[in-house]
Amino acid sequence: MNFEPAAVARDTASIAASLSALEWITDSRVERLSQDFYWFSPILKRQLEGLRADAVVRPKTEDEIRTVVSACAQRRVPITVRGSGTGNYGQCMPLHGGVILDLSAYKQLLWVRPGVGRAQAGIRMMEMDKQIQQGIKGPDGRPCGGWELRCVPSTFRSATLGGLYGGGFGGVGSINHGPLAATGNVLGVRAMSIEPEPKVVELRAPEALLLHHVYGTNGLVLELEVGLAPAHAWLEAIVCFDRFDAALEFGDALAASPGLVKKSVTVLAAPIPDLLLLAVPVLAGSMTRGSHAVFVLVAEFSEPGFLQTVAQFGGTVSYRRTAAEVQASNRTIVEYTWNHTTLHALKVDKGLTYIQSGFQAGQHVQQAKAMRKLLGDEVLVHLEFIRTKEGAMNCSGLQLVRYTSDERLNQVMQIHREHGVYIANPHVYIVEDGKQGQVNPDVVATKLRFDPLGLLNPGKLRGWEQRERIMADAAAARVSLSTLPRF
Amino acid sequence: MNFEPAAVARDTASIAASLSALEWITDSRVERLSQDFYWFSPILKRQLEGLRADAVVRPKTEDEIRTVVSACAQRRVPITVRGSGTGNYGQCMPLHGGVILDLSAYKQLLWVRPGVGRAQAGIRMMEMDKQIQQGIKGPDGRPCGGWELRCVPSTFRSATLGGLYGGGFGGVGSINHGPLAATGNVLGVRAMSIEPEPKVVELRAPEALLLHHVYGTNGLVLELEVGLAPAHAWLEAIVCFDRFDAALEFGDALAASPGLVKKSVTVLAAPIPDLLLLAVPVLAGSMTRGSHAVFVLVAEFSEPGFLQTVAQFGGTVSYRRTAAEVQASNRTIVEYTWNHTTLHALKVDKGLTYIQSGFQAGQHVQQAKAMRKLLGDEVLVHLEFIRTKEGAMNCSGLQLVRYTSDERLNQVMQIHREHGVYIANPHVYIVEDGKQGQVNPDVVATKLRFDPLGLLNPGKLRGWEQRERIMADAAAARVSLSTLPRF
Repeated sequence: MNFEPAAVARDTASIAASLSALEWITDSRVERLSQDFYWFSPILKRQLEGLRADAVVRPKTEDEIRTVVSACAQRRVPITVRGSGTGNYGQCMPLHGGVILDLSAYKQLLWVRPGVGRAQAGIRMMEMDKQIQQGIKGPDGRPCGGWELRCVPSTFRSATLGGLYGGGFGGVGSINHGPLAATGNVLGVRAMSIEPEPKVVELRAPEALLLHHVYGTNGLVLELEVGLAPAHAWLEAIVCFDRFDAALEFGDALAASPGLVKKSVTVLAAPIPDLLLLAVPVLAGSMTRGSHAVFVLVAEFSEPGFLQTVAQFGGTVSYRRTAAEVQASNRTIVEYTWNHTTLHALKVDKGLTYIQSGFQAGQHVQQAKAMRKLLGDEVLVHLEFIRTKEGAMNCSGLQLVRYTSDERLNQVMQIHREHGVYIANPHVYIVEDGKQGQVNPDVVATKLRFDPLGLLNPGKLRGWEQRERIMADAAAARVSLSTLPRF
Repeated sequence: MNFEPAAVARDTASIAASLSALEWITDSRVERLSQDFYWFSPILKRQLEGLRADAVVRPKTEDEIRTVVSACAQRRVPITVRGSGTGNYGQCMPLHGGVILDLSAYKQLLWVRPGVGRAQAGIRMMEMDKQIQQGIKGPDGRPCGGWELRCVPSTFRSATLGGLYGGGFGGVGSINHGPLAATGNVLGVRAMSIEPEPKVVELRAPEALLLHHVYGTNGLVLELEVGLAPAHAWLEAIVCFDRFDAALEFGDALAASPGLVKKSVTVLAAPIPDLLLLAVPVLAGSMTRGSHAVFVLVAEFSEPGFLQTVAQFGGTVSYRRTAAEVQASNRTIVEYTWNHTTLHALKVDKGLTYIQSGFQAGQHVQQAKAMRKLLGDEVLVHLEFIRTKEGAMNCSGLQLVRYTSDERLNQVMQIHREHGVYIANPHVYIVEDGKQGQVNPDVVATKLRFDPLGLLNPGKLRGWEQRERIMADAAAARVSLSTLPRF
């Protein structure tokens, strides 16, 4: 389907006018609300700069959402579903204008029971954790505290649960529970189809996962039911090392240590700690200049064993805050990890960009050492320890790269691939290009079911254009939705 | 030192007479209280049959313990420290008579705070978990519920915490937190020396671990401070499979799955389920005859993902009890796992014995398949999934063996070793013989410190007889207590 920009703009304006009871944004704020952190990539910066929707709508109820969706479907107006736009690599920018469906006002925590919570997609994750801690009542009417989200991004303050589901992979906490896609982390979603008469259905896992990590291109997620983890008082610490290998080995041992309860282990090779010190003045004194740093969130009751492990690997604890101190200060080192590291580093060194990578569990320490040796000062090593979907300890890289040219950047990624390191390329905006060219045929089938008109941010899912061939191939290979268990 | 039986008996009687305020047992019950499950091994049955102490004393306070210890040290009377004697392979039977120091009346839960609890060594583990659940007050005066022990044996009903520490390796819960020896699981112990004037000191980890798993031969543990785990409502289930490989692969996937919260995964190859059905009439209908069974404790909130995994591997849930049903019935399938499996099987087939083994993490599934293929019907495969001390998923074997001769039993163990499977030989009673002939020199150094007269069940620690050579070698290798961090 072709989308003629002027027609889309006219139809969008007309929808906004006809649904004036809803909250619409049509002024200069639309530009900002159309963007995300696409500028982390020099390539996407060139490709996506200037993209903007024609209007932003911020519904507060499912009825309001249904009204907008129906109107857009009737007029064939593209819809880009957004949380807070912290999804950090150009994956939720509207390629063909139309309406941005901003879900950040659709944000109720619906219920919490031991180990599981359910909320509307637009809830901010910090807010969800706060409400859970306050002991919101469960379906049985009893308050249920002592839990928290199993996995949050470093942007948990502003990022929404639906945004994490649509654009995220894992995060802080994945060191215990693996990525979002691991069985048990997401129990179900309520999804709406993009049609003149939108249908709403509950999808349970594993089917629910077909709407995960495709950036809202194959269905509209209204509610999520997610696994929760026991909430502990998290001690925050930074451990400095003279040698990178010691920092890495310490991080790996701590991450894997089954008797030590932790939430996060981040390894930042020199000179990343120096960049952070430069970018974040409040970190002054928290790290030794020139050192390799490991950022840690560990349960307060595990501190003795944590210190024992620090001593074993010859590290120095250069920063330590109790959970109470963290809460009182409203500052957490989580906001210097994951893509916040990237953000801060890019603030002070405009010549940097980054890549996203996944090592092979079991060989990850060896691979990380080898890649650092091979790529020297060009690639600044940033590793986050997480469990794989199958449960093995591993690390993900969000390496900073000194950018020289697109060609060299692609070479750096190719060198990783050639050494068995998986690359989730953050310099492309087509879904498949970020996933080694592949898309699960069931993802396309799901789009056929939930977005038969192809209105969800058109142009992002290449498989949609090839849907007839993909469906035929899948049928031939007997891979189809019907083979999935249904609940 | 030689212990002349008649002199030991006389001295013991004299101590009992002089300390008549304490609870002494000197009648026929002494024989039963001198035994453990040594008869699981046909070899130990012959070697240890008839061993008995001269008297059992059951002190209630540290003062009473001190009085007994002092008297025994003055008269050089052997002391065998015991919990409930469920330590199941002849490791706490008094080799030279004397006094059995039964700590089961020294059983106070001292305090609980989030993630950590401290108790006297004689507390029964079920009682400890119950008191924690009831929300005993922590050191800050606030009640602290929602926790449980990280690891319990299948004998948790009667077994004591000190007994687990002295004779146990891991247990139900080690699938999450690894063995007791993993950093963070034991934070400290209060230990008494065996001297005319007993000294009492607090040892923190890692030093505290030197008194672990040497069957009370190198010091007297009075109190233990241990890590706790969040208590969940555990669903109990049995899953049946037609094929062993499917059962094993299911067990492995479930054990490792990071988003599914579980406490225990036990794989019982056919015909073990049939033996259990025969031995435990109440299990009638809980398993399909002839099948391979996997016994599972999984958090109730993880049931959907658990069922998804069952379906994926083609299993059938043949038994399911909610936590409330388990509590109401006072029956748990835990009591058919670990060495309870052995116990029940031996009840109905006197020709069986067993071995204890540890696979190589990562190769454990492959190794378990290969060994089963190799040893056929002679070895009945029973596997318990646990994390290693370093945190990798693995399994331990408590295989049942059709006993023909000592020679063949030793061959079966040797075949395992030759295939890279570690054997913890349960058919020997010398500490080192169960640990591939090795003992940590620091264990011997600890005995020098806490039992300088060599009175703790003499004859069990070969390293004690060779202490001069071992200490000299250790000094030469610069391996000594002084290299351990102290807190």
